[in-house]
Parts: sequence; C-alpha cells; structure tokens
Amino acid sequence: MSTSSSAGSGDSSAQVRSEQVLLEQAVGSFDQCPDPRLKEIMQSLVTHLHSFIREVRLTEDEWWAGIRFLTEAGHITDDNRQEFILLSDVLGASMQMITVDNPLVANATEATVFGPFFVENAPRVELGGDLAGVASGMPCWVEGTVTDINGDPVPAARIEVWESDDEGMYDVQHDDSRVAGRAYVVADDAGAFRFWALVPTPYAIPNDGPVGKMLRAAGRSVMRPSHLHFMVTSPGYRRLVTHFFPRDDEILPNDAVFGVRQSLIKDFAKQPAGAPTPDGRNLDGGPWARASLDIVLAPDTDG
Amino acid sequence: MSTSSSAGSGDSSAQVRSEQVLLEQAVGSFDQCPDPRLKEIMQSLVTHLHSFIREVRLTEDEWWAGIRFLTEAGHITDDNRQEFILLSDVLGASMQMITVDNPLVANATEATVFGPFFVENAPRVELGGDLAGVASGMPCWVEGTVTDINGDPVPAARIEVWESDDEGMYDVQHDDSRVAGRAYVVADDAGAFRFWALVPTPYAIPNDGPVGKMLRAAGRSVMRPSHLHFMVTSPGYRRLVTHFFPRDDEILPNDAVFGVRQSLIKDFAKQPAGAPTPDGRNLDGGPWARASLDIVLAPDTDG
Repeated sequence: MSTSSSAGSGDSSAQVRSEQVLLEQAVGSFDQCPDPRLKEIMQSLVTHLHSFIREVRLTEDEWWAGIRFLTEAGHITDDNRQEFILLSDVLGASMQMITVDNPLVANATEATVFGPFFVENAPRVELGGDLAGVASGMPCWVEGTVTDINGDPVPAARIEVWESDDEGMYDVQHDDSRVAGRAYVVADDAGAFRFWALVPTPYAIPNDGPVGKMLRAAGRSVMRPSHLHFMVTSPGYRRLVTHFFPRDDEILPNDAVFGVRQSLIKDFAKQPAGAPTPDGRNLDGGPWARASLDIVLAPDTDG
Repeated sequence: MSTSSSAGSGDSSAQVRSEQVLLEQAVGSFDQCPDPRLKEIMQSLVTHLHSFIREVRLTEDEWWAGIRFLTEAGHITDDNRQEFILLSDVLGASMQMITVDNPLVANATEATVFGPFFVENAPRVELGGDLAGVASGMPCWVEGTVTDINGDPVPAARIEVWESDDEGMYDVQHDDSRVAGRAYVVADDAGAFRFWALVPTPYAIPNDGPVGKMLRAAGRSVMRPSHLHFMVTSPGYRRLVTHFFPRDDEILPNDAVFGVRQSLIKDFAKQPAGAPTPDGRNLDGGPWARASLDIVLAPDTDG
C-alpha cells in the first residue's frame, strides 16, 4: 500500500505526458494511410482537435453537449435543409475554405460563400431579360462586363444569378415549385451582360435548429446582409462564385457567415419613381434601381 | 483597365492577411457571448478549425466530402447507434477528453473511454454471484478491493460491470431484450468484491457506416482488444469509469479507440480444466479463468 503527499492534486508533468502520448497514438494511427492526402488531412485534423480539447480542458458534460449538438444537426438535415453547411458557415469555416481554395490573383473579383440555395439547371434568360419572375421586390437593372485580369473582354461567359425575394425567401424555400429570382445569362462577344433582377434584401439564416440555438446563446445575429449571388464560368478561367452587396445595408459589418468583402460592396442606386428605364421597360411609374457589376476572372491554374 | 505582372500567381502577403482577417472576424463574433465558458470554447474551436483549414489548404471538394461525412453520420445515428461518439472515439478525442477531465492523481486507477454500451438500471448481483447470465463465454472469477489513494479500504462502493459475449456482442446489440454480461455489485465493508463474469473477447466496433469507411480508407483496424468495463462510485470519491484488459490480447497495441493504458492491463489467468473454483461452483469440469482487479479511487475534488 502506497502513500502519497500529492493526494488530490495531479502530477502535472505526468499528466502532460499522458495527454501528449495519446495525441501521438491518434496521429500515428494514420501513419500507414495509403492515400497521402487523406493522411495529411486526418493527421492535421486530429492534432487540432486534441489541441482544442486540451486547451479548453473540455469536460465530459461539454463533450456530451457537443455530441448532442451534432446529433441534432444530423437529424434536422434532409434534402432541403443542410445544418452542417450552416454550422460551417457560421463558424467562418466555409469562408476560410473559399479563401484558401481561391487565392487572390491580381485584380480578379474575389470569391465568397456559395450558400445552400444554388440550384442546377436554372432557366436561361436572354440578355436584358427579367430573372425575377414571380419573386417580389424592387426591380433592379444590372449590367457589367466580364474581363480577364489584363482588362481584355472574356466573351460568352455563363453567368448564373440567384437571390431571395423581399420576404427573405429563395424560390426553393417556398412550398410551391416556383423558379424565381434565379436564371443564367450568357455575356455577349464583348463580355457585356445586362438583366433585370430585384434589389436584394437582408434575411435570417434558418435558425430553428441547433445552429440557431448556438448563435442565440452566443449573443450573435442570425442575419445576412442583402446580396445578389453570381457564379461565372468560362473555359480557361477559374470558376468564380461570389455575391455583391448593396453599400447601404446596415448589416454589412455583422454577416452571420462572414461573406462580406470590401471589394464586393457596390452601389445599387435607387432611381426616382417614373424615371425612364434603360431598355424602355414600363414599370407603371414604380421605383427601380440599377447596379453596375463588373467581373474580372482569374486564369484557371488547374487547367 | 489595369495590368498585372503577377498574373496567375497569388500575392502571398495579401493572401495571408485575408485569411488572418477572416479568422479574426470569426473569433471576434463571439466577443459579446454572455457565457464566458461558451465564449472560451467557441473561440478556441474556431481558431483550431481555421488553423486546420489553412494548414492543409482544404479544397472545396474536400470540404464537401466532410459535409457528406457528417450528414451520413447524422442519418445513421439513432437511439441504438451513435456514429458521432464512434467518430470521437476513433480520432482519440473521447480518450483525450477523459484524460483531461480525469487528471492523474497519485496511484488512483486510471480512467478510460466510457463506450456506448453502458445501460442505466442494470440488475444487482450479490457478491460472488454470476453476472454473465445467458451471455456465452468462458467463466471468469473476478475479485479485488476498493481503496483510497492511501490504501485505506473504501466500504460499500457501487461497482457497475459490463462486457460483450464471446460473439463480440453486448446484450443490447442482440435483438431480443436480454440483460446479460451486465450488473452491479456492492463491495463489502472492507472494500472487497468478487463475482463471476466472462473472460472478455475482442470485437469490431460498428463499421458499416461512414466511420468504418474512413477507417478502411486509412488502413486502420476496426478492432478493440478484449476488455471488462467498470464504473465505480462512492460518495466523496471521483467517479471512475474504466476497463481492464487481459495481458495476452494481441490487439492491445492497436485499439481502434485508444482506450488501453499500461496500468489497466491485467492477468486473466486460465485455470486447468476441472480445477476447483474459489466458491465451489460446479463448472462440469470446463475451463475457467481468474483475475484480481484492485481499484484505487481518487478523492472527489468537485465536492
């Protein structure tokens, strides 16, 4: 039978060693991974995960809270709701990945988060056409030019555009099967494009699940500033996924998903009611706005 | 129109700054968190998550693979299957949390992972009784004493014991409602306890889900070495959750969940067929084993 003079207090050097050995075992378990990239990712993930647990001295109750959080996120996620993307978004992880995966290139337009509301196979709208459809909101004339980083026009780029209506809802969030506030246009041979959309409006991210609960507990906002999504593609150029933000939005400094970049803030200029429209469209004397949104594509370094 | 001499290559100092600014925004979003512990945890989590993404230069495809992994884990998780605990286990995160949350104290018995197979309200078995029930396997006589770190007996500790059968299945994994290989005993006034259980056997963790797929992709084993679970509680002492491992198990160095500690490896000594049992139990001349498993409880520093 042994006695101890340190009853009730840990032996701190043995404790540190014990934690370190465990980290080494977990990292070492991936040493034989046949895929070098998977090995690199898992060993880095394990290292940072253990560092986090050790740094905050995570308790069992807190670990359980984390397990319950992930379980709830998994159970609320279905074909129409993606709580794990939302979690990645509100922790800034999505935006950090976008930043890392789309390194700055000269004056190329910066990328931002994709978001969960893009839909494949949106309809094509001719240049100058209206992509709002039945979505409600103030009409907005959008025009611009697609160029490369030397300022030379990129002809015929495909420009996907999507946005919420002025209730803060994307078409896919309505329970009919509308397609509205969503289309693609193809720029002309000089890289120019123009279309009617809606002035974007702020909205709350889905917040009736565990992510919303966490944001409220942390005293954080669930709002996104208003924005107009773009995805621009052209052979030989890096795919650009971004959005543009109206300059007058008060939520800009507090985007719940950290998508705002200074270079993406633009004027969406309100026009006097009854002012003539660029293409002669009759808006019955109602208000409208216009925005000039030029796009600069980075070369495709993968190709 | 601008030109650039660095076309196609990133401006690396601007890139680093951009990533750093994003990290600061994400960390700063928790500055107003009213709960200081939640703030500490979230800011550390965000810092390590961003460090991981930046360190491995995570791509969008890899991020999607992570989102899909978490989604699959969420969808396979139900009342009987907990893929997030399994994930935490195989990354060593559970064991690191246990290590952090149960600091070494003198000669106190070390803790290890709880595992998903503990059940509340197990039946009581009298000292010397058999907790195997209908579970199949080689009978094993277990005896020991519960003491404090000074070697003084701890009377009447509650000792929960659970284990798999020799098919590698816990009772709750069978589709009947059996209770077997699971019970609690209460130590006597001198801290002594004894019961019949089964010699534990190795088994595979559930591996038909995303965690199993990841382990196979990484070239890792899905096996756990054989072990006998203990949870020991007594007022005034830190709750001990641990298991003991037979010394002759070849899987000891490769536990899929990193639960093995040298101090928890014990002799489970096979006895000659027909050897008389300690309590005169008639095993019809069949083989049996015995193990001496002493328990040392740390003082409860929370109380």
